[in-house]
Amino acid sequence: MPQKTLNVGLIGYKFMGKAHSNAYRQVGRFFDELEVKPVLKAICGRDEAGVQRAAGLMGWEGYETDWRKLIARDDIDIIDIAVPGNLHAEIAIAAAKAGKTILCEKPLGNTAAEAKAMYDAVREAGVKHAIYFNYRKMPAITLAKQLIDEGAIGKIYHWRATYLQDWIVDPNFPLVWRLRKDLAGSGVNGDLNAHLVDTARWLVGEIDEVSSVMETFVKQRPELAATDDRMGGVASDVMGEVTVEDASLFLARFASGAVGTFEASRFALGRKNYNQFEINGSKGSVQFNMERPNELNIYTEDTHAGTFGYRTVSVTSGQDPYSGHYWPTAHNIGYEHTFINFLFDVFTALGKDEMPSPNFYDGYVNNVILETVEKAAETKKWENVPSV
Amino acid sequence: MPQKTLNVGLIGYKFMGKAHSNAYRQVGRFFDELEVKPVLKAICGRDEAGVQRAAGLMGWEGYETDWRKLIARDDIDIIDIAVPGNLHAEIAIAAAKAGKTILCEKPLGNTAAEAKAMYDAVREAGVKHAIYFNYRKMPAITLAKQLIDEGAIGKIYHWRATYLQDWIVDPNFPLVWRLRKDLAGSGVNGDLNAHLVDTARWLVGEIDEVSSVMETFVKQRPELAATDDRMGGVASDVMGEVTVEDASLFLARFASGAVGTFEASRFALGRKNYNQFEINGSKGSVQFNMERPNELNIYTEDTHAGTFGYRTVSVTSGQDPYSGHYWPTAHNIGYEHTFINFLFDVFTALGKDEMPSPNFYDGYVNNVILETVEKAAETKKWENVPSV
Amino acid sequence: MPQKTLNVGLIGYKFMGKAHSNAYRQVGRFFDELEVKPVLKAICGRDEAGVQRAAGLMGWEGYETDWRKLIARDDIDIIDIAVPGNLHAEIAIAAAKAGKTILCEKPLGNTAAEAKAMYDAVREAGVKHAIYFNYRKMPAITLAKQLIDEGAIGKIYHWRATYLQDWIVDPNFPLVWRLRKDLAGSGVNGDLNAHLVDTARWLVGEIDEVSSVMETFVKQRPELAATDDRMGGVASDVMGEVTVEDASLFLARFASGAVGTFEASRFALGRKNYNQFEINGSKGSVQFNMERPNELNIYTEDTHAGTFGYRTVSVTSGQDPYSGHYWPTAHNIGYEHTFINFLFDVFTALGKDEMPSPNFYDGYVNNVILETVEKAAETKKWENVPSV
Amino acid sequence: MPQKTLNVGLIGYKFMGKAHSNAYRQVGRFFDELEVKPVLKAICGRDEAGVQRAAGLMGWEGYETDWRKLIARDDIDIIDIAVPGNLHAEIAIAAAKAGKTILCEKPLGNTAAEAKAMYDAVREAGVKHAIYFNYRKMPAITLAKQLIDEGAIGKIYHWRATYLQDWIVDPNFPLVWRLRKDLAGSGVNGDLNAHLVDTARWLVGEIDEVSSVMETFVKQRPELAATDDRMGGVASDVMGEVTVEDASLFLARFASGAVGTFEASRFALGRKNYNQFEINGSKGSVQFNMERPNELNIYTEDTHAGTFGYRTVSVTSGQDPYSGHYWPTAHNIGYEHTFINFLFDVFTALGKDEMPSPNFYDGYVNNVILETVEKAAETKKWENVPSV
Repeated sequence: MPQKTLNVGLIGYKFMGKAHSNAYRQVGRFFDELEVKPVLKAICGRDEAGVQRAAGLMGWEGYETDWRKLIARDDIDIIDIAVPGNLHAEIAIAAAKAGKTILCEKPLGNTAAEAKAMYDAVREAGVKHAIYFNYRKMPAITLAKQLIDEGAIGKIYHWRATYLQDWIVDPNFPLVWRLRKDLAGSGVNGDLNAHLVDTARWLVGEIDEVSSVMETFVKQRPELAATDDRMGGVASDVMGEVTVEDASLFLARFASGAVGTFEASRFALGRKNYNQFEINGSKGSVQFNMERPNELNIYTEDTHAGTFGYRTVSVTSGQDPYSGHYWPTAHNIGYEHTFINFLFDVFTALGKDEMPSPNFYDGYVNNVILETVEKAAETKKWENVPSV
Repeated sequence: MPQKTLNVGLIGYKFMGKAHSNAYRQVGRFFDELEVKPVLKAICGRDEAGVQRAAGLMGWEGYETDWRKLIARDDIDIIDIAVPGNLHAEIAIAAAKAGKTILCEKPLGNTAAEAKAMYDAVREAGVKHAIYFNYRKMPAITLAKQLIDEGAIGKIYHWRATYLQDWIVDPNFPLVWRLRKDLAGSGVNGDLNAHLVDTARWLVGEIDEVSSVMETFVKQRPELAATDDRMGGVASDVMGEVTVEDASLFLARFASGAVGTFEASRFALGRKNYNQFEINGSKGSVQFNMERPNELNIYTEDTHAGTFGYRTVSVTSGQDPYSGHYWPTAHNIGYEHTFINFLFDVFTALGKDEMPSPNFYDGYVNNVILETVEKAAETKKWENVPSV
Repeated sequence: MPQKTLNVGLIGYKFMGKAHSNAYRQVGRFFDELEVKPVLKAICGRDEAGVQRAAGLMGWEGYETDWRKLIARDDIDIIDIAVPGNLHAEIAIAAAKAGKTILCEKPLGNTAAEAKAMYDAVREAGVKHAIYFNYRKMPAITLAKQLIDEGAIGKIYHWRATYLQDWIVDPNFPLVWRLRKDLAGSGVNGDLNAHLVDTARWLVGEIDEVSSVMETFVKQRPELAATDDRMGGVASDVMGEVTVEDASLFLARFASGAVGTFEASRFALGRKNYNQFEINGSKGSVQFNMERPNELNIYTEDTHAGTFGYRTVSVTSGQDPYSGHYWPTAHNIGYEHTFINFLFDVFTALGKDEMPSPNFYDGYVNNVILETVEKAAETKKWENVPSV
Repeated sequence: MPQKTLNVGLIGYKFMGKAHSNAYRQVGRFFDELEVKPVLKAICGRDEAGVQRAAGLMGWEGYETDWRKLIARDDIDIIDIAVPGNLHAEIAIAAAKAGKTILCEKPLGNTAAEAKAMYDAVREAGVKHAIYFNYRKMPAITLAKQLIDEGAIGKIYHWRATYLQDWIVDPNFPLVWRLRKDLAGSGVNGDLNAHLVDTARWLVGEIDEVSSVMETFVKQRPELAATDDRMGGVASDVMGEVTVEDASLFLARFASGAVGTFEASRFALGRKNYNQFEINGSKGSVQFNMERPNELNIYTEDTHAGTFGYRTVSVTSGQDPYSGHYWPTAHNIGYEHTFINFLFDVFTALGKDEMPSPNFYDGYVNNVILETVEKAAETKKWENVPSV
C-alpha cells in the first residue's frame, strides 16, 4: 500500500528525547496498520557534539543546534518538544506560527499563563497538537478507562493517588534542572502531579476545588557540576537553594461528586516510580501501580458469591488497543511502550486529519489545576479551579 | 506465687464486649508473668436475656442490667466501657467518682467536650484509666514504633494512611447505630480515623493543623429492624436520614515537620479492613496493613548495595513485647490478640501502680483532632489543632 | 438448655499441648451451638513441676504425671495425645482398650505399622477417634474444598505444594526432638509432609504412586542441653548425629489422573511457615499460603471477559462453617483457630454420636503414603502406595 | 569511531522472528559501546507474501524464500535460526559448513542426537555460535547470578522452579505446531523446561540425575485451520492427536548436592507466563517470576536483626550489565529486552573474537537433560544424566 510519512523534528535528546526517539523508531514496527508513519528527520540540541552523537545513536537522519532553524525547515512536518519546561511556550508558539504539528512534553507550560498562550497559539494557527501524557496509553490504564466507560465500576466515589520516588532523599544529591524553578517551573507538581492529574481527569472527570500542602524538606543542595544520562548528576562543592517543592499533597472534589487525594513526593524511600492510583465506585474498584505496569487490579462482585476479591489482571492480551500488537500474554512490555502507544494514537489521528488526544487543551487545564494547588498551599484554603 | 487479681465489670456485650471478654479470659493464659490478673466478675447490658446469655457464653461470673448498679458494687475494681459513644461520658464520670479503674473504648467521647470532662474526672478522682487504641499493640505496629525510636527510619517526612472498608456501599444496608450521630457521634471519624490518628500520634508525633473534606454519599437508608452479631442488621421498609459522614479525608502538618494524609471511608469496594499506613523517613520506610496484620514492610538501605527493596517481615518471633508469648514464628495471630496485648500492658501497669498507655489523655487529644477535622471541613480552611 | 460435657485428659504440655489447651478453652466461647462441650479435666506430663505449672496456666482442673493413670481415671472421657510420635501408639492403644474417645496429634504413628495397630485398636474397641490435621479447618482451605466439591474448579490437573521453614539452617541449631528418628520417627515427612498429604487427599483425592528424594544437609549438630517453649533449645558442646531428613520432595500421581509435587524442607531461608499449595483444574485454580492464612487466592473465568486474574479473597465472612463465629470481615483470625475449629467439628460429631473427620483412618493412610515416599527415596523408583 | 558491522540473515518471521528482529534493530540504539553492530540484511520464510511483508514491517533490507539460498549468500555473516525445532539441525549444520556465525533458538535440537550433531558441526567448522536462552539476560536473573557468584546466597540447598501457562486448557484450542511432536520435538519440555533447565544450570550448576512424570491431559484436539500472529490459531472441524506432553514434572539432584523440582505445564489456569524459580542457600534466598520481570525477591540476614524478610528489589538501576542502558530506576523494561540484552552479549563477544555464552554446548547439554527427563518418565526410575 502506498504509505504516507510525516517528517519529525525533535528538540531535546536527553531522557525524554531518548524515549521519544525510540517511540518514533518503533511505532511503525508494531502498528502495521498505521497509514501515516513518522520519519526521524532531525534532532536538535545546543551542544553540537552531544546532539550529533545522539542523532547517530537514536536513528535520526540529521541534526540541528538551533530550534529556530529546525522550525524554519520546510521538510519538517512535526515539531516534538522534549526540553525543560522553561522553553516550551516559546518553541511551541513559534512552531504553531510556522504551521507545524506540535507534540509537547508535559507540563505544557511552566505556568498556566504560558499554557494558555500555547493553547491560543495552536488554535489560532489551526495546527494539530498533542501532549505527552503517556501513562494514559499504558494498556492497564486504558483498560481501567474502558471499564469505567462501560459502567463496570459504577458511580465513582473515591480517587486515591500517589506518585512517589526517592531519588533525592540524600541531601547531597545535586541541584539538577528538575530542582530549579527557573527551568522546571515547579518540583513534583509539574513532574509528577501533572501525570496524576491527567489520569484523574481522564478516568474520573474534571476537578472543581482543591486544598493542599507543599513542602521542601531539603532547602539547600550542592550545585550541579555535570549531568548524567539518567536523572542524576555530579555534585559540586558550592551550595545552592532548592527553589521547588519536594512534596505536594492535595485533596480534591470532582465535578462528579467524587472526592480524592493526590500526593507527589521525591522523599518516599523505597518507592522508586510509584505512580499509583485506586478508584472506588459503587460497583467496583480498580488499582494500578506503574512499578508493575502490566497489571490492573480489579474488584467487582460479578463472580461466584463469597469469593469476591481484588484480582490481578495481566493486561497483555489485547484487552486494550495496544497490547495485542506486541507479544503473547504476560510477555510484558514496559515504560517505553507508553510512548510508542501514544504515537500510535497520534499518527492514527493525523492519518484521519483528526485532533490527537490528549492535547494542548488537556495540558492547559492541567496547568490551571496545578496552579490552583500552588495557590491553595499559600492561602491555606480550599480554592476553586478556574474554568478555562 | 501468691497472685493478685482485679475484678472486672464490663458494660456492653456485642462486638466490642465479645472482644474484650475474650481478652480478659486469655491474657493470663499467654502472659504468665503478669502479677495482677483479671477476674471476669460481671457483664452488663440492658436486655436481660441477652446479657445473661452473653455472661455464660463469654465466661463472666454474673451480670447486671443497670450500669449504675455495676459501678455501685464494691467487688468491682475495673469498669470497662464497650458501648456506643453516646454513653461513654456519663458512665466514665460516674465510675471515676466511684474510684474505679476505667478502660474505655474509643473514641473517648462523642465530642471533645465530653472527652475533656472525662479526662478531668479521672484526674480529679485520681483513678487509673486507659483507652482501647488496640492497634498500637499489634506486634508489627509495635515493631514500627521500636524502629522509629531507635532511629532506624531517620527523620520522618511522610505519613500516609487509609482506613477503608466497604460494608455500607449497598444503599439498602440499614441505619445501624454506627450511622447515627446521636449514638456514634460521628461516622468514619470516630470509628476509623480515630485509630489512624492514634497510630500517627504514637509513631510520628503531635498534629499541628489539618485541612479536610467529608462526604456522605448515601444520604438516606432503611431504618434498622434488627441487629446481628457482626456489624450489620435487618432493613425495615422505612427510610431514615444518615446523619454521619461516609468518608473523611484530611491533610495534616505534624509538629515534627512531617506532612501527612488520612483517609477513612466505608465506600471503598474491595477494601475490607484496610487499616493501612506508610511512613517515609530520611533513612527508611515502614508500611503496615491490618488485612495482613502479622507483617511489617520495611525499607532500609543497610544491606547489600544494589539490593535495596521493601521487605516483608513476619513479626511473630518476639521482636516485640507480645508475639513471643504465643506461637512459633509465622504461626500467625489475629485481630483479637491486639486486645489481649492491650490488657497485658494495662495489667502490667496496674501491677506496678503505674498509669497505662494509651489512656484518657490520648483519647482526649484524639477527640480534639477529630473535631478540628470536622471544623476544617466546614470552614474549608486549614485549622490549627487547639492545644490541650 | 441443659448442656452435656465431656471430660478431657490431655497428654503433653509443650507447643501442641498449649495449642490444644487453648482450643478446649475457647471452642465453647465462639461456638455457642455446641451441644457437648469439653471440660479441661487433667493435663499430663512427666515433669511434675512443669505440668503443674502448665495446668494452672492453661486452665486445667488437675494434672497427672503418668499417662497410664490418666487413662485409668473413670472421670476422663477423652484422651488427647499431644506428645512426640514415639509414644502415640502405646498411649492410643491403651486408651482405646479403656474405651476412651481419642484425639491424636499427627503423624498418627511413627511408622505405618504403628498407625495400623492404632487404627485396628480403635475399631476393635469401637471408640471414637480423630487426628489433628488442623489445617483442614482453616477457613480458606475449607472454602477451597467447598469450591472443588461444587465443581467451580473443574477437573483437577495439578497439585503443587510446599511446606517450607528455615529454623534449622544454622548448623549450630541443636538436636531437638524433631531431629531425632527415635522420637519423631522422621524429619520433615512426619512433621510437614504429613500436613500437605492430608490437604492433598482431602482436596484432590487418593495418591496412587510416588517418586521421591530425601536429603539431610547438616548431618551433625550439637546435642540439646535444654528446650525452650517454642521450637528451639540450647546447644551443648557435644555433637550428635541428625537421624532424620531435612528435606523431602516427591512427585505423585493421583487416582483422579492429576499429577502433583510435594516439597517439605526446613532449609528454605526466608520461608517461615510456608505451608502452601496450588491446585489447577479445568475451570479454575486455588492457591493458599499459611503465612497469609485468612486469604484464598482464586482464579476462575466467570467474570467480565478480559479481566480474569487471581483474586485474593478474605475468607473471614462466614463463607465457611467457622469464620462467621469470630469477628467481622477481615478482622483476621490466626493459627490457633485451626485447633478451635477442629474441636468444633469434633464435638459436633460427638454430640451426634458420629465419627469425627479426619480420623485415624486418615492418619493411617497418611502414614502409609509417607512410608511409600521413604521407600521410593531408597529404591529410586516410582512406588505404588499400598491400599489399606 | 569507525564501526564494524555484521550482516544478519534471519530464518523465521513469526513470534520468534519478530522478537529477534526487534532486538537486532534495538541493540545498537541502547548499547552505544558496541564495536560491532548488526545489519538486518535479509529475512527468510517460505511464504513470499508473508516474508516480504515481514521484511518491510520489521526493518530488513531484503528477504529470501529458501534458507539454503540465504546461507549461500556471501554478504551474510550471521545465520539466525528462529523456526520450529524440526529444522534446526539441518539449517545449523549447513550454516556451519558455510562458515557462518550461528544464533539458534532453543531447544537446540529436537533430540539430543540432533543437538550433538549441531554441536559437532560448529566445532568442526570453527564458527561462533550461541543459543537464545534469553532469560539469562533479564537483569533480575543476572543479578541473582551475581549474588550467587559472590557468595551472598551461600551453599545452595534448594532449586524450585515452575514454568506455567494456561493457553491450551480449553480442549477446543487447535493443534498448533507446538502440540505436534514432528515439528516441536516435544511439548512443554522443549518449550518451557528448556528455559528452566538453562537457568538452573547457570545458577545452581550441572544436574546429575532426574525422576519425572509427564502427562497429556487432552489427547485429541481440532486440527489447525489457520495460525495467528501470537500463539494461537483457528480450529478446523477435524480432530487430530496431540503428540506431545501437556505437563512435565521432575525432581533433580545437582552435582553440588542441591535438590530441585521442575514443573512445566500449559494447564495451570491463571498462570500466564509463570517462569518462576526460587533458590535457597545457606546464607540467603532469591526468587524470580517472569510475570514481574523487573523484580528480584531476595532474602538475606545481613540487615537489622529482627527485620529479616524477603525484599522486592527493582533491578532497573544498573545493578547488572544491562538495565542501566535503558531508563531511570523502576521505569520498567519487558520481555523483548531479554533478546536485546542477549544480542548485546553476543555482539560484545563477536567484537572480541570470543565465543558467546550461552552457546551450542549449553544447548546440547540442555537437550541431553530433557531427554533424560523423558527417559525417566518411561522407566519410572531415577536416571543419570549422561555426561557429554
